[in-house]
Amino acid sequence: MANPTAAFLVIGDEILSGRTRDKNIGFLADQLCAAAIDLKEVRVVDDDHHNILRAVRELSARWDHVFSSGGIGPTHDDITADAMAAAFEVAIDVRDDARALLEAYTGRNGGELNDARLRMARIPDGALLIDNPVSVAPGFTIENVHVMAGVPAVFQAMVSSVLPGLTGGVPLLSRTLRIDRPEGEIAGPLGEVAARHAKVSIGSYPFILQGRFGANIVFRCSDRTLLEAAVFDLSALFPEAREL
Amino acid sequence: MANPTAAFLVIGDEILSGRTRDKNIGFLADQLCAAAIDLKEVRVVDDDHHNILRAVRELSARWDHVFSSGGIGPTHDDITADAMAAAFEVAIDVRDDARALLEAYTGRNGGELNDARLRMARIPDGALLIDNPVSVAPGFTIENVHVMAGVPAVFQAMVSSVLPGLTGGVPLLSRTLRIDRPEGEIAGPLGEVAARHAKVSIGSYPFILQGRFGANIVFRCSDRTLLEAAVFDLSALFPEAREL
Repeated sequence: MANPTAAFLVIGDEILSGRTRDKNIGFLADQLCAAAIDLKEVRVVDDDHHNILRAVRELSARWDHVFSSGGIGPTHDDITADAMAAAFEVAIDVRDDARALLEAYTGRNGGELNDARLRMARIPDGALLIDNPVSVAPGFTIENVHVMAGVPAVFQAMVSSVLPGLTGGVPLLSRTLRIDRPEGEIAGPLGEVAARHAKVSIGSYPFILQGRFGANIVFRCSDRTLLEAAVFDLSALFPEAREL
Repeated sequence: MANPTAAFLVIGDEILSGRTRDKNIGFLADQLCAAAIDLKEVRVVDDDHHNILRAVRELSARWDHVFSSGGIGPTHDDITADAMAAAFEVAIDVRDDARALLEAYTGRNGGELNDARLRMARIPDGALLIDNPVSVAPGFTIENVHVMAGVPAVFQAMVSSVLPGLTGGVPLLSRTLRIDRPEGEIAGPLGEVAARHAKVSIGSYPFILQGRFGANIVFRCSDRTLLEAAVFDLSALFPEAREL
């Protein structure tokens, strides 16, 4: 059976403007790989209601899970929760359980549960809260969409709250051979190896290191015997290949 | 007049599997910002013909320019050129000008123009070549899509080949105030400032630094007077705000 699939929707002008370098894509990719959930697509969209809504609907229909980051804070440009409610055509309002979390937290920290902070207790009808051990304001899961914060520390904590509840597939095993030759010299024999081992996913990722060309050949398969056979086959053709 | 818009399509299993951390999104975002072309969307898709084709068609129809990276090398998993030809329903074959470039390069470097390398001279009908000063194998522009390599050094060189030929808009001016308070205390007054300065784009980007909460407030506008007025307005409300 095929692994569950997922998409990641990054909501944030700051990535698109170049102001902030994304740190969440790589983290989520690693976590999903370890959970044997196949990340199939990433989208970054700006803080625009209709662009968010359209992306959520498309991704939610296409893949088993959608993870989103960004836009669930207290400021005027935090519009993700409303866009999610609109995407699934449900109402949204301050919810008692989320409000109680924020009340307890601001009380402990001497802050005030003002209108801005109360915005973070607005949860679409029918959603499940996602625990936020860093700064309390919760994320939520609506349908197959897990809505999380964009600040990396909070995002990572929320991913850790969500992932154990999801069912993964069969983990892929992976091996990598580095060959210090231009891809153009590797490609012919590699194509024949790939054709002979059709059940093994084989990717070639070229690099330039100190002016010299090379490629990392990545073999992936859930069956160890098939994987080893493909690696053995290519190694015989390129004796200089080194395992990474 | 609004600035031209753009999308970036990253083609590559290696980003989705977590094996490789993306380096091209931030670079392109910076370059487009400087050229006053608004990056509106990024997508990362896997090395799948239909997923590439669908994404190219959607993005090409929606935005003024599409930049793509990845999948134009010599190996069996380099399928981007064919997907682009299919997306625009044109034929694709080895083209003489691209072949001549590769022949001259492999000749100079003592290599052989084998079948694998010749794959890199396959160019969709009607496309314009994009210069590759790093490793010669060209990218190409078809319709409004600029198809480039994924290796960062080559990607960057190709972006530099393409950008001077595109018409940008009016550069956005930008100022950033850092306020060392939780966003929940900033959000109310900030929302009022944003409402009073509707022509200035104001974003709040929270951070956690050594366990303390703060936010960078980014003001963007093409008109300096409007920009300064909004910054002045918020500074008066938060005297501790520091310019970044």
